[in-house]
Amino acid sequence: MSDTAGKTITCKAAVAWEAGKELEVTDVTVDPPQKGEVRIKIVATALCHTDKFTLSGDDPEGLFPCILGHEAAGIVESVGEGVTSVRPGDHVIPCYQAFCGECKMCKSGKTNLCGSVRQWTGKGVMAADSKSRFKCRGQDIYHFMGTSTFSEYTVVHEVSVAKVNEKAALDKVCLLGCGVATGLGAVLNTAKVEKGSTAAVFGLGTVGLACVDGLKDAGARRIIGVDTDVGKHQRARDWGCTDVVNPADHDKPIQEVLVDMTMEDGFGGVDYSFECVGNVKVMRAALECTHKGWGQSVVIGVAGSGQEIATRPFQLVTGRVWRGTAFGGYRSRVDVPVLVERYMKGEFKVDEYVTHKLKLSEINQAFQLLKEGGCLRCVLYMD
Amino acid sequence: MSDTAGKTITCKAAVAWEAGKELEVTDVTVDPPQKGEVRIKIVATALCHTDKFTLSGDDPEGLFPCILGHEAAGIVESVGEGVTSVRPGDHVIPCYQAFCGECKMCKSGKTNLCGSVRQWTGKGVMAADSKSRFKCRGQDIYHFMGTSTFSEYTVVHEVSVAKVNEKAALDKVCLLGCGVATGLGAVLNTAKVEKGSTAAVFGLGTVGLACVDGLKDAGARRIIGVDTDVGKHQRARDWGCTDVVNPADHDKPIQEVLVDMTMEDGFGGVDYSFECVGNVKVMRAALECTHKGWGQSVVIGVAGSGQEIATRPFQLVTGRVWRGTAFGGYRSRVDVPVLVERYMKGEFKVDEYVTHKLKLSEINQAFQLLKEGGCLRCVLYMD
Repeated sequence: MSDTAGKTITCKAAVAWEAGKELEVTDVTVDPPQKGEVRIKIVATALCHTDKFTLSGDDPEGLFPCILGHEAAGIVESVGEGVTSVRPGDHVIPCYQAFCGECKMCKSGKTNLCGSVRQWTGKGVMAADSKSRFKCRGQDIYHFMGTSTFSEYTVVHEVSVAKVNEKAALDKVCLLGCGVATGLGAVLNTAKVEKGSTAAVFGLGTVGLACVDGLKDAGARRIIGVDTDVGKHQRARDWGCTDVVNPADHDKPIQEVLVDMTMEDGFGGVDYSFECVGNVKVMRAALECTHKGWGQSVVIGVAGSGQEIATRPFQLVTGRVWRGTAFGGYRSRVDVPVLVERYMKGEFKVDEYVTHKLKLSEINQAFQLLKEGGCLRCVLYMD
Repeated sequence: MSDTAGKTITCKAAVAWEAGKELEVTDVTVDPPQKGEVRIKIVATALCHTDKFTLSGDDPEGLFPCILGHEAAGIVESVGEGVTSVRPGDHVIPCYQAFCGECKMCKSGKTNLCGSVRQWTGKGVMAADSKSRFKCRGQDIYHFMGTSTFSEYTVVHEVSVAKVNEKAALDKVCLLGCGVATGLGAVLNTAKVEKGSTAAVFGLGTVGLACVDGLKDAGARRIIGVDTDVGKHQRARDWGCTDVVNPADHDKPIQEVLVDMTMEDGFGGVDYSFECVGNVKVMRAALECTHKGWGQSVVIGVAGSGQEIATRPFQLVTGRVWRGTAFGGYRSRVDVPVLVERYMKGEFKVDEYVTHKLKLSEINQAFQLLKEGGCLRCVLYMD
């Protein structure tokens, strides 16, 4: 038992006071975990575009003031009443997607979208009492995605905590809390890509590159990367893309370019496509570049509020399938520990996505880095 | 060998001279079948909404003058060079979707959308010489969907001919050439509905009712029919709907009505939905009424030219799947004979869809009947 157990902890956190403003790294208080909750000492947290999206104010679910952050790893400091799956000292990845194993969604065996705590995490509070565990200068600070990892300490629901091998480097496996897992899972769980398939990946950031790595793992014979940022092209080739296309180099729509590139026996189109941009026009192109009869397109990117995807229904009637994925279909508490083991065996890339390292106090600089094509992931250390 | 083999036949056919006009039942000539072709004496043909759609002029692929019709059955009169799979006297169903077994599409094993003759059938001609086999008063008359069954005799590609049990009633199994097969297959092949599932069927005409029958076959525990034509409601219940809903009875969008109706353990939505109307707004509702995490919606209806489907990508990211089907995923030449056998064993309804019977000479009256909710299928006899 740590000597802070049961006590309120005062520590540093990056508070997002309002949309569109810089974060303030300041002292916050973190209440002890209540029933079914776990308090975690965060060791490292990365930044993801969803943090930026919410901070921008474009996320209709965004609540302020809040503590952002959802791609992290740490060590359990203390646990609340009834918590049995982890104990103090365990190395863990807090997951924004819970997995309780007992709700209608989990029991279905068909989805990773656990419904046990979503109604509270969506409101920035904890399930036990519908309140926050964070305060700053006497004011309640909302939780974010049930994780709030831009803090030295955070409180999460037990159902959102994945216990991982303690030999894994926490400042690397934190990426399995969102981006890398999402890309791998989109390929391996959602699309279930078969050996010898052809694929297109739209957007060559961390999630797109993780798709490329997943496609290699699945044995895809052709992997076409698509990005207007040519600065990302060589890295995409290094990751495993067999071709990389810049839509700006072509007069015709990118879906037609890809169909032409993949013409075989009179029919073109990729077997699978993945949208990792969050642009509804790109989502359409990603669907329409897939092969008649069996092409599947997976939406991964998060589009702006109120935006809609569209296509002619003929695209579906002639055999294309449009689907999406959240956290790559991984059942967080169950599957993330396995992903960590696979990473430790060298089965896929993780370290390679960490292009920048900063301290929590430098978080605003890290948000600037996210806008640059050269930055995949910036990992923040707490010390 | 029939005594007409190798000769041009003069017979009655219903010619669509131009979009939006009544058909003219008149004498046409039907050339002998060329290499890889089969000439069929049509015994009975039904009318389907796709015939009406093309006749209306809304089908951008529609070519005039043509002979419409694609839901029929008949007897082989003669065959062209190299035809081995059928011979004169065989009972057959001409299929608008071919199955050659040898093209990229057929060999994939993933789709029924054979690509062997589509480029010619789409242009209203035969593959051997890119010409029509029909003439009327000296003018070439286009083929339609590779079938043109509104004629006493027609010529089709061998790859489009399904040989069926000669004991089957041709004036019934003709419906397995399109509507009934499409609805059954959407459920059994495309969606692969599991026992105990819940489902919604939008549009309670022949295709929708065939979906309902397929859902019963699959063991669905709840089948919700949706149609604004209350005249169709009781029949839908007779077919197997557990609930029937009229969207006009509700102030809120029909997708919300269905989600509320199916609420269990805090989550609502059907496991599967089927759109059998051809309305892009209904297609959206059909997707959005499915269950978060695993709901699948199948587009079956044919929308007007240029119309688009739309939804928020969040619908897909949270686990819904949007797909479509053509001819219910059945590989025509291979699967239609099996469907006929299953029909003969009483495994699903066919006779029950025939609400009206007329002669070919009364075809314009039959088109009028199609507009009435009480008419499912009007079968035309040639004699």
